[in-house]
Amino acid sequence: MDNYQFGLIGLSVMGQNLALNIAKNYSLAVYNRTDSKTKDFIENKVTSEQIKATYQIKDFINSLQKPRKIMLMIKAGKPVDLVIDSLLPFLEKDDIIIDGGNSHFSDTEKRLENLADKGIRYLGVGISGGEAGALHGPSIMPGGNKSAYEEIAEILQSAAAKTEQGNCVGYLGPRSAGHYVKMVHNGIEYGIMEATAEIYDFLRKVLNFKPAEIGHLFADWNQDFSAYLMEITAEIMEKDDPETGEKLINIILDKAKQKGTGKWSVESALELGVAIPTINAGVNARLLSALKTERTANSQHFPQPDQPEVQAAEIIPQLKSLLYLTTIVAYAEGFKLLTAASQEYEYQLNYQEIARIWEAGCIIRSGLLEKIRSAYLNQPELTTLLTSSEFKQDLISAAKAAPQIFSLAAQAELPLPALQAAFNYFNSLKSAELPANLIQAQRDFFGAHTYQRKDKTGVFHTEWEK
Amino acid sequence: MDNYQFGLIGLSVMGQNLALNIAKNYSLAVYNRTDSKTKDFIENKVTSEQIKATYQIKDFINSLQKPRKIMLMIKAGKPVDLVIDSLLPFLEKDDIIIDGGNSHFSDTEKRLENLADKGIRYLGVGISGGEAGALHGPSIMPGGNKSAYEEIAEILQSAAAKTEQGNCVGYLGPRSAGHYVKMVHNGIEYGIMEATAEIYDFLRKVLNFKPAEIGHLFADWNQDFSAYLMEITAEIMEKDDPETGEKLINIILDKAKQKGTGKWSVESALELGVAIPTINAGVNARLLSALKTERTANSQHFPQPDQPEVQAAEIIPQLKSLLYLTTIVAYAEGFKLLTAASQEYEYQLNYQEIARIWEAGCIIRSGLLEKIRSAYLNQPELTTLLTSSEFKQDLISAAKAAPQIFSLAAQAELPLPALQAAFNYFNSLKSAELPANLIQAQRDFFGAHTYQRKDKTGVFHTEWEK
Repeated sequence: MDNYQFGLIGLSVMGQNLALNIAKNYSLAVYNRTDSKTKDFIENKVTSEQIKATYQIKDFINSLQKPRKIMLMIKAGKPVDLVIDSLLPFLEKDDIIIDGGNSHFSDTEKRLENLADKGIRYLGVGISGGEAGALHGPSIMPGGNKSAYEEIAEILQSAAAKTEQGNCVGYLGPRSAGHYVKMVHNGIEYGIMEATAEIYDFLRKVLNFKPAEIGHLFADWNQDFSAYLMEITAEIMEKDDPETGEKLINIILDKAKQKGTGKWSVESALELGVAIPTINAGVNARLLSALKTERTANSQHFPQPDQPEVQAAEIIPQLKSLLYLTTIVAYAEGFKLLTAASQEYEYQLNYQEIARIWEAGCIIRSGLLEKIRSAYLNQPELTTLLTSSEFKQDLISAAKAAPQIFSLAAQAELPLPALQAAFNYFNSLKSAELPANLIQAQRDFFGAHTYQRKDKTGVFHTEWEK
Repeated sequence: MDNYQFGLIGLSVMGQNLALNIAKNYSLAVYNRTDSKTKDFIENKVTSEQIKATYQIKDFINSLQKPRKIMLMIKAGKPVDLVIDSLLPFLEKDDIIIDGGNSHFSDTEKRLENLADKGIRYLGVGISGGEAGALHGPSIMPGGNKSAYEEIAEILQSAAAKTEQGNCVGYLGPRSAGHYVKMVHNGIEYGIMEATAEIYDFLRKVLNFKPAEIGHLFADWNQDFSAYLMEITAEIMEKDDPETGEKLINIILDKAKQKGTGKWSVESALELGVAIPTINAGVNARLLSALKTERTANSQHFPQPDQPEVQAAEIIPQLKSLLYLTTIVAYAEGFKLLTAASQEYEYQLNYQEIARIWEAGCIIRSGLLEKIRSAYLNQPELTTLLTSSEFKQDLISAAKAAPQIFSLAAQAELPLPALQAAFNYFNSLKSAELPANLIQAQRDFFGAHTYQRKDKTGVFHTEWEK
């Protein structure tokens, strides 16, 4: 009975695909809360793989080799606790639970601690790559109990995406390190997606490009970017809507949803006192997009902007530059947040290893990751990617695109929150003098909050009132 | 013994000044954890006022008329709980505790509930105006137990700032309504302060203005703005440093600090799904300013920007326009956050009353508040100030300044996070079409997250892969 090498609970498409992926090399027992999903999976998806369907938690557990290795592919939040509780009566010392969902890192901390008290080993594992990645090779970000990781490392390695540097998986650190890194991965994703959307908006509204033209352009740019999100954007622009015959992108409603990891990144950054404005802009832009009814009503109050006259040939390389700059900054913000988190939570993160794991399989994979890996390989203590020799010159060149694009977008009344946030972040972080001296003066004026001086140490207060 | 009308605990400068203010019309007992502070206050600050110093909590309590009215002017957080705990053994049913500090609204909710169980009435009261306001008349934002408010209303009214519309105080709503409104007040303050700092930065770096010139300009603009923050900025620019003879603003270190209310505003907005990007930019800019050492080191990696050649006379009215637009947007974001909070927390906020209370005494007082009050008076259900007839035309005109200023700032590599966030917010909220359709397409492509269509209701998924 107990001879299956790995257990997986939760047969959503992600869970199914990961099960099929792992089953290429390992035998698997699976379980799902709803029996019909399990049946459907076994009957319609599983072919020759060694996958056993179980319909009782007890059977599921008893099918597994000891120490048991059980991966949860279920919705983050309460469901994870409920499933863990249902497993506990059957588990034995040293069994391993692996949470493969997008759990909040603070939940992972609590679960790991509670289960450690019971002798159960816990791993919080971020998995990125969507449905296709789960099946063909995702990027896997494990953290938690190290001995547990070592026992399942081969299985994760077999499932993970591959690059010349190896498998896109590796132990990232203790406790919630894996889920934290995955959260930041998703935060970066928000930033890059919003930046891409802004470029798309500029192309259609200022340059009057049709979706197919935009698709060609993105496909062309992607020869330099080698970025998954750009690749799928090019494909999206070409997709026809079978019902209307129009391009599908023109039919999709402009109300973006979000599932929390972007918001969590911003919250955690605030908590740690780290600014991630480009990622933050991605989150805020989705919130504003959701107000479709209000926006439509508001638009009636205002005249349509005059579209500026422009030469596409002159503008397009500048748009590419700004997208490039914004993408680099989104990564730079993410890695800076990871640096602060690693210090605060004692994760001892290895940044070049994280870049390596992100090089394939995940949603934010792109040619830039190789350069990021190289930057951290050369300078493990780098405070920001922006000053690394891998990016410095590119950023200086790319930033030259800002004046004209910002001016045109402003004429067209086009919001560029992520592109401008990235440009501002870059310039703030390389600015020896920011105008925060005025903010300190104001705070001292109205609230006696004191200030520091440039010419000597100490804390000072001035009686400002005349 | 028990004949003092009001009690006040916490003799920081804010507490001292508020005590002196209230004591103009009411008799007061005061207490401070450190006796020396109380002694110093009584000996050096109190003249003819009816203020009794007490050095034991018991004496303090016994000095007060029943039901006792006790205001806490102490640091938010644990100290508030400690002081409440120290009072409890001596309090009787129907006594009133008034927290006049910047407590987080969720703490106020808990305290109010706990004390209600004990028969003690609680008020969470935001007070703005800094040291000068506390003495001469602050803006007061009370929330919590309504019967308690009614019993202290006269006292607060006597202390509050005055306008033609009455005293800058009024019952805002149940439970934590007062502290929530004060938190948002401070959030708006962050946005306006950052916008002012960015204009200052442009004036000094692009137009090469000296502090005195900047001071004159702000003083001139303030004939239109009538804003406290602009008034003190003008004064700050004129202030000499007695030690060096230089303008003090040039000596102050550009590292801004923050005490939490800006961060809390952003966190609460995220929680409620409301975008407040201008306020958010203020918080992020302070975080980046704090990295002074890193910024200075980073700056060595990059060439100095070429300063664009400009005609100050042409530029200055545009800077004024953008500061005006950004200030309106900061208020608009704040009021939109209040609207969402009022719904979620059932505060039943009255927005024109809030605008009225902010018209004098507080840090964000300005001529705009009268227009905001009028906007909500005319349309109590207004979803955003930006479409109100009070602001619409001004915004349309002011936005015309963006193309040139954004272009010049980009050439000068000057970050304008708040000014651009405000412009983007304005344009997003009046944009019938945002590019979020691409974000939804991407999410559906990689994660099968589904999308909505423009031409019919429902939820849709496409098999995007070729």
